[in-house]
Amino acid sequence: MGSGVTPNAVAAVDEARQWDRLMQMARIGAIPGDGVNRACLTDLDRQARRLLIAWAEGLGLGVSVDALGNLFLRHEGTQPGLAPVLTGSHMDTQPNGGRFDGIWGVIAGLESVQALREAGVATRRPIEVVAWTNEEGGRFAPGCMGSMAYAGFKPADAWDDVADTAGLTFGEELRRHLELEADLPRRGLGVVDGAPPFAYVECHIEQGPRLEAEGLDIGVVTGIQGSRWFTVEINGKSDHAGTTPLRLRKDAVQDMVRAITALNALMHDPEDVLRFTVARIEVSPNSSNSVAERVRFSIDFRHPDAKVLTERGDAIERVVNGALTTCTATVTERFHALPITFDRLVRDAVERAARAQGLGTLRLPSGAFHDAQFMSRICPTGMIFVPSRAGVSHHPSEYTEPDQLAAGARVLAAVLADLANR
Amino acid sequence: MGSGVTPNAVAAVDEARQWDRLMQMARIGAIPGDGVNRACLTDLDRQARRLLIAWAEGLGLGVSVDALGNLFLRHEGTQPGLAPVLTGSHMDTQPNGGRFDGIWGVIAGLESVQALREAGVATRRPIEVVAWTNEEGGRFAPGCMGSMAYAGFKPADAWDDVADTAGLTFGEELRRHLELEADLPRRGLGVVDGAPPFAYVECHIEQGPRLEAEGLDIGVVTGIQGSRWFTVEINGKSDHAGTTPLRLRKDAVQDMVRAITALNALMHDPEDVLRFTVARIEVSPNSSNSVAERVRFSIDFRHPDAKVLTERGDAIERVVNGALTTCTATVTERFHALPITFDRLVRDAVERAARAQGLGTLRLPSGAFHDAQFMSRICPTGMIFVPSRAGVSHHPSEYTEPDQLAAGARVLAAVLADLANR
Repeated sequence: MGSGVTPNAVAAVDEARQWDRLMQMARIGAIPGDGVNRACLTDLDRQARRLLIAWAEGLGLGVSVDALGNLFLRHEGTQPGLAPVLTGSHMDTQPNGGRFDGIWGVIAGLESVQALREAGVATRRPIEVVAWTNEEGGRFAPGCMGSMAYAGFKPADAWDDVADTAGLTFGEELRRHLELEADLPRRGLGVVDGAPPFAYVECHIEQGPRLEAEGLDIGVVTGIQGSRWFTVEINGKSDHAGTTPLRLRKDAVQDMVRAITALNALMHDPEDVLRFTVARIEVSPNSSNSVAERVRFSIDFRHPDAKVLTERGDAIERVVNGALTTCTATVTERFHALPITFDRLVRDAVERAARAQGLGTLRLPSGAFHDAQFMSRICPTGMIFVPSRAGVSHHPSEYTEPDQLAAGARVLAAVLADLANR
Repeated sequence: MGSGVTPNAVAAVDEARQWDRLMQMARIGAIPGDGVNRACLTDLDRQARRLLIAWAEGLGLGVSVDALGNLFLRHEGTQPGLAPVLTGSHMDTQPNGGRFDGIWGVIAGLESVQALREAGVATRRPIEVVAWTNEEGGRFAPGCMGSMAYAGFKPADAWDDVADTAGLTFGEELRRHLELEADLPRRGLGVVDGAPPFAYVECHIEQGPRLEAEGLDIGVVTGIQGSRWFTVEINGKSDHAGTTPLRLRKDAVQDMVRAITALNALMHDPEDVLRFTVARIEVSPNSSNSVAERVRFSIDFRHPDAKVLTERGDAIERVVNGALTTCTATVTERFHALPITFDRLVRDAVERAARAQGLGTLRLPSGAFHDAQFMSRICPTGMIFVPSRAGVSHHPSEYTEPDQLAAGARVLAAVLADLANR
């Protein structure tokens, strides 16, 4: 890394340009209250990708797409045969999402690469900005399909039959999408068809309150806490709400209340590190005067310690069954990701770059799930966090200041210049 | 009542014919497991009405319809100017309903009138069999619109703007329906356009377990317990399920669990007479990894004692608010019906007829809500219950034996002959 060159690239990061691009993207799928609803593989998703591609082509980057629809914008290295440094994130949002989750990591990658080019910084290794397909998993579960397939954890057709609520399948929608992007060069799929990248760096808003609370600029992400997702189905019996004595009922709502209360006790954590959330409930027949026959509810359980994740997660089924009085339950684990600790290579590069720029840093694990989770298994991986106002994310009021986002992109530019010259 | 004539009419009630008609009706809107889903003012509802009209015309009954779509089948009296005896019920079902709720009251009315005619029993007063529009309220809330308008509690256009989940309004659907029945003579609307009936008798399955449990044939209904329906809306804040510490959340699902637990305590009743049901829950955004911002849930609360209904119902808002930890709540009362005690005229006639036929009777209040609720305000009203297997209703497995239904129709035939000759 030329010590006189990188500062020029860092200085070339343009706060207003990055912000303007984010605001342009935020109009695609805008919802009331400054929010965004841009589900994966919808027309809105495609419109956002086309806008990104137009910017990349304007900069002279090489655009290509793989079998999962993962989109790559390539800044060529002086030694094109070397493994590239990969940076990016995702462009899809939660149904009631904000303007920064995911999309900022892609735009920051573009901004950093543009800054390097404008500063005339050549790198030995290519740098690729990636937009992963379906990180959120809101339309097609699970999330992180694009990075999971890239990293070889699942075959490319693993989710072809996953349907959205309208009955459209991921396979059909991906095929339709790729046909509409048939003008773009197709590339092989990650480590399935080629070599791993040299490193992966992902910029993201913190989505939690810690950086703001401590008045710091940059989160140096040490890893990602583990996640276990479950669906609990409670089966009772529907009865007339006006006639059936309570002692004769098998009321699935009442046993759900008991199950959640018992799970709250299981998941109690005085240190408030553990994350336990019930956020999706479906009642059947969901008619106010028919006792609930069936309730399905979701459990999202996360912890940075594998031991806690294993012990308490494994206890869920027993605790639910112990709480029921009249109904029966089935507990299905839908997702299980062990905690990840990132390699030191990227982490140290981020910390060094932030400090060189006079920024305040905090080492912290990521509470949220990211594509970096899967990338960390195939190459040195790290993340750069910037503060989230009030810790809010997955909501229209999600917000980070333009200068905070610019600080993140400046750190990324320095990290890319560093890593791509190794 | 000629003591030699009525027995002939009672004997003319045809168990197989009544059962066959019920099974023909059950095919209109049939759903798996012997259930029926026949929502008010749908094409299926119309198809069922057409079948009923065809049977009535075959018997020579006079068919007419009023402004609410209430359908009347008239057996003429020897003194046509006298106030008629009215009997019937409704033909719409719950979304996941059974084959007997409502429709049996209509078919039993037809069977009884046919039996009177076949036995050559003339009555002074006319007898009219009525099928009320929208008793269930499943498609358009509230229920009992037809009887409520007939009895003058609400104007005919009161619910014109009530929309179903597809956005169609009751007013539009009723208009469309009446146009398709324009071939039928139109009659005035109940007490709004004319005099009240002499009496109203409604046959219905018990929808509860008591007759079966006590091995009895006929429920002599003493009244209808009071009902209060509420919607509770809990407002919190959506946050990322993986990052937001639990102490910083305003989780609407967690406060719903606390509210329901507190309401269970409020509604505790060792005698198991009180009916308290939470059966409809809607969570927003209902995404497994976004903390719930808003939860709406229904409360269906019933009791035969007006004092209990008032005191505990009035306490709901305070108890909900007292249970919340971080969210706010609004409690809206959607419906309030005081307990009803039926007049002795019909009750005694039912009891007398049942005993004369050697049937075992039980006096009991109705746990469910019926059109009789509103009719009881304008004329002497009563109900005849038959057993429900395992007390189940509002479910495909709802069942009553053919001979139990025939016993109910035989009591009705005797009661109609009795009342229509007064």
